Amino acid sequence: MTAAAQIRVLTGIKPSGTPHLGNYVGAIRPTVRASRQPGIDSFLFLADYHALISTHDPARVQRSTLEIAATWIACGLDPERVTFYRQSDIPEIPELTWLLACVCGKGLLNRAHAYKAAVDHNIAAGRDPDDGVTMGLYLYPVLMAADILMFNAHRVPVGRDQIQHVEMARDLASSFNHRYGEHFTLPQAEIDEQVATLPGLDGRKMSKSYDNVIPLFAPREQLRRLIMGIVTDSRAPGEPKPTDGSAIFQLYQAFATPEESAALARDFAAGIAWSDAKERLFERIDRELAPMRATYDDLMRDPGRVEAILQAGAAKARAIATPFAQRLRRAVGLRPLRELAAAAPAPAPAKVVLPAFKQYREADGRFYFKLTDARGHVLLQSLGFDSPREAGQAVARLKAQGWAACADLHAMVQTPADAAAVEAALAALRAAAN
Amino acid sequence: MTAAAQIRVLTGIKPSGTPHLGNYVGAIRPTVRASRQPGIDSFLFLADYHALISTHDPARVQRSTLEIAATWIACGLDPERVTFYRQSDIPEIPELTWLLACVCGKGLLNRAHAYKAAVDHNIAAGRDPDDGVTMGLYLYPVLMAADILMFNAHRVPVGRDQIQHVEMARDLASSFNHRYGEHFTLPQAEIDEQVATLPGLDGRKMSKSYDNVIPLFAPREQLRRLIMGIVTDSRAPGEPKPTDGSAIFQLYQAFATPEESAALARDFAAGIAWSDAKERLFERIDRELAPMRATYDDLMRDPGRVEAILQAGAAKARAIATPFAQRLRRAVGLRPLRELAAAAPAPAPAKVVLPAFKQYREADGRFYFKLTDARGHVLLQSLGFDSPREAGQAVARLKAQGWAACADLHAMVQTPADAAAVEAALAALRAAAN
Repeated sequence: MTAAAQIRVLTGIKPSGTPHLGNYVGAIRPTVRASRQPGIDSFLFLADYHALISTHDPARVQRSTLEIAATWIACGLDPERVTFYRQSDIPEIPELTWLLACVCGKGLLNRAHAYKAAVDHNIAAGRDPDDGVTMGLYLYPVLMAADILMFNAHRVPVGRDQIQHVEMARDLASSFNHRYGEHFTLPQAEIDEQVATLPGLDGRKMSKSYDNVIPLFAPREQLRRLIMGIVTDSRAPGEPKPTDGSAIFQLYQAFATPEESAALARDFAAGIAWSDAKERLFERIDRELAPMRATYDDLMRDPGRVEAILQAGAAKARAIATPFAQRLRRAVGLRPLRELAAAAPAPAPAKVVLPAFKQYREADGRFYFKLTDARGHVLLQSLGFDSPREAGQAVARLKAQGWAACADLHAMVQTPADAAAVEAALAALRAAAN
Repeated sequence: MTAAAQIRVLTGIKPSGTPHLGNYVGAIRPTVRASRQPGIDSFLFLADYHALISTHDPARVQRSTLEIAATWIACGLDPERVTFYRQSDIPEIPELTWLLACVCGKGLLNRAHAYKAAVDHNIAAGRDPDDGVTMGLYLYPVLMAADILMFNAHRVPVGRDQIQHVEMARDLASSFNHRYGEHFTLPQAEIDEQVATLPGLDGRKMSKSYDNVIPLFAPREQLRRLIMGIVTDSRAPGEPKPTDGSAIFQLYQAFATPEESAALARDFAAGIAWSDAKERLFERIDRELAPMRATYDDLMRDPGRVEAILQAGAAKARAIATPFAQRLRRAVGLRPLRELAAAAPAPAPAKVVLPAFKQYREADGRFYFKLTDARGHVLLQSLGFDSPREAGQAVARLKAQGWAACADLHAMVQTPADAAAVEAALAALRAAAN
């Protein structure tokens, strides 16, 4: 973080499709504005690894990445102020995805909404539950967790359908922290309850799936034509028009000041013609979009400039990701071997499994010992001693002098099957004690 | 590949546990020998990402990596000749894992033996099928496919339990090639039907799970003691001993020349004492291992040297992986944006959706046209013409001159609801035609 008091906010942008006015008003404009607030350290990235789950046309992935990057910059995102990068420029992210997969119970992903919806759909259609489900789709919440945790984001603004994924990122952060120490900030989903939605050309919510959108950077003439084609009722010029439920009025409000909206409302009441109202709407929207459109067109003519901006953003992001990934690698044990020399300057021999003496009391009330090898097999078994002290003294002498040198003890110990093995075991114990 | 005619063979080595004589005879020695054959381009890697699935002790991951790397080098692996690297030094591998996940049907992994065994075990115990299953375990075959496909290995020597995973790598290679073009070689599993197994200290197969192993680089005295402790029958010195089923004899054979084995067989028949036979075995094994043990001990005292060898191996591996990963990134669409400038030097405006004329014949036998906007809404609807030619001429004039300029046609066309929209649509068509 650039300052301790800053809140780090992370937003992923999927590079697919051409943005429309609804995306601008509901997502792009508020996010760009939020990124300019004091105390906010904003991270925005083009989620092109995610796009590969659903987009199998390589040229489209590339072109969408350009269009979406150019759109956000044109809409006022300041790459100097925020960290704006392309996911696939950060190789630490797929690596972290693997580290998180190793602390992620499979059951967690079974409960993911998007996956469950696909399964339910398959079952309803009488197909195999996993029909058509790729590992990309299934694993997606882990990749998303890596996106978030890589930068220790505090807040992740998401729609309601993505809350669960942010909670999964929290879960994975907790699991990792629990196993390997405190490394990750637990992120919070941030829900904007009042996401602005716009009506589309047919009066329903503007959405690609309704095919009723106005492309954000349609050329001026196309923008005009589309606005002129917005469905209205049949009220004639001169007839008063309600603002309530009017797509024209709602669209106008999304761009105008309160004063401008009040003026239009008065004109509605006074019976403005629909064609004049549309003309006013067009001019108001175009006034906001025209300078952005010019920037957008410039950027689209100069993809190298967009690439350079993204590369600079990747450098900023990796200035954080690379050392943090090193720390995470160390945490899980992926460490430079030369450190072992510093930690243990003495020779590091192969691990020696040691034989062991055991002392115990039997039901007869007497005290015994036995010598076992590393696998627990008995090499030497004593007879009974009157006290634990005597048994202990015998063990101490055997340890110090070996079997052959303690001939006076032989009567107190069963003759071993393999005297050489006993001698070797005692030698090993002596060597380990020194 | 260093030469076109070479066969690339890839072997993954899991850095866990301390290698024992059985590992040496069954895997390390034959693999090292095979790596020295002409025509073989051998890739061997320490699978430390894989180790994270089951090893949660970071210090153990690090130490095992050192021990296993030192073991293979001590056993004669020539890092100059082969490509010997640590998986986690190749960041292209987790990235390729994601690319492959996006072409991997989840159903494929549901059928993986290791996963199915865990599920069966859980079901039998009355637990949730995925109880205790991590995504690391579940995703493991995709990571293994990335290991193999990253280097376009032709052959992957594996045990029977791993054949399925190599087949999955083939499947993923085929799926990727099918979608994105021919990039991957389809790997072949290579099964050695005659894997040498060794008896352990108790006569059963030497295996960590039986706790009957002889560590490969146990110090000489410990090796002697362990060999002396191998279970034998009670035949006394002088009594003839069968070689068949004798652990001592089998172990000896695994190290001795045929002539040496024949000589020991004669001594068995002549009634050699077990202790003498064990002494012969110990000396024979130690003769092969002693120089390797010295190298191993040297390497373990100098972890920095092992690290340097692995770094050199990583550089060799990445000389292949980095450009190949670039090629794969391009294939899926993760491409530098500046190339779009070269591909399309003209300005790239936002995609314009065009209006369209449609001509058709009605049931009344007459010919009609209509003009629809990009969403299919009718802007203009003609009345009936006598011939398709007349309808076509009207369309051509409207296209060329616009609506207002064709006043003589107005009688043949229904008055449009929005004349401005018609004019704009016709202008858009003219602009697109130029």
